[in-house]
Amino acid sequence: MEALKQRILEEGIVLSDQVLKLDAILNHQIDPKLTTVMGKELAARFRDQQVTKIMTVESSGIPIAFVVAAELGVPLVFARRKKTLVGDTETYSERVPSFTKGIVTDIMVSRQFLHADDRILFIDDIIANGDAARGLIKIIERAEATLVGMGVVVEKCFQQGASSIREQGVRLEALVKIKSLEDGKVQFQE
Amino acid sequence: MEALKQRILEEGIVLSDQVLKLDAILNHQIDPKLTTVMGKELAARFRDQQVTKIMTVESSGIPIAFVVAAELGVPLVFARRKKTLVGDTETYSERVPSFTKGIVTDIMVSRQFLHADDRILFIDDIIANGDAARGLIKIIERAEATLVGMGVVVEKCFQQGASSIREQGVRLEALVKIKSLEDGKVQFQE
Repeated sequence: MEALKQRILEEGIVLSDQVLKLDAILNHQIDPKLTTVMGKELAARFRDQQVTKIMTVESSGIPIAFVVAAELGVPLVFARRKKTLVGDTETYSERVPSFTKGIVTDIMVSRQFLHADDRILFIDDIIANGDAARGLIKIIERAEATLVGMGVVVEKCFQQGASSIREQGVRLEALVKIKSLEDGKVQFQE
Repeated sequence: MEALKQRILEEGIVLSDQVLKLDAILNHQIDPKLTTVMGKELAARFRDQQVTKIMTVESSGIPIAFVVAAELGVPLVFARRKKTLVGDTETYSERVPSFTKGIVTDIMVSRQFLHADDRILFIDDIIANGDAARGLIKIIERAEATLVGMGVVVEKCFQQGASSIREQGVRLEALVKIKSLEDGKVQFQE
């Protein structure tokens, strides 16, 4: 994904050795063309996996997860953060810390939309510490559904989320891997 | 949009005279095919308006807003709820109550992604009381951008959001209009 690397170099803002701001292409503004190319690439990597449902955690993963769902012809379920008054009690929920937000949130999925016979492909924008990802994976396990893998746009290799998820035996695919943000520079892993 | 009406009748859950739960097709699970048809229809209604950007408020409006953006070939900006630690101070923000969540939230848009020469089409899933919508419209006004209109999937005619926004002179298009939820039944307005 050379086009994506180029956009990260041009539009990403390194805020610290740990934090890369990608508001221009992932977390606040979306380029539909780039997102479509990225989503098709992730869909292609899991096309042979008999996926029945795409899942993500709101919000930044929704656009790319939507493209993957459209491409594979399956529904998209986005886990909600926090309980709303309209929510029913028929939900799986997990409490997770958030690295970037500095707060704890509950993520929840209605039992209505996640079943034991589902084969789930989990799509997200970025994997850093992986707290929300591990929370959603726990929910998928509690529902006794099958997680066929996880696809992300950006993997930050210097944080432990991706490796901790691979250690659980989950196949994790990333479109680009970032090795370091040191000295204000984005270094990709080849 | 007969297909959409049918899905609302089959999968919507009337929780009260005021609240219709559409988790199965809009707020938690998404059918990419239906969403694509809906997004193309909204895009068609505003195609002659020289739209430069689609805006929505996270999260449920993101999938359909993404389709409209892809269809019109323009970026999508989704307003964020609440400030994150990663956020910069260069944002427009508005505090809005939320009818369904029973809480107050701040919605924010970075100044980087909203300019005076922008022609904005605002896309959302449902308009009920319109609090978040009026908040985003205020932000668009403060940026001195042009709001060419608003497109929603569902308009709840018996709440005042849509009429209050039309009274401001905003062109608001809805794919379906719901007249009443009385006696647990969804009644459409023809």
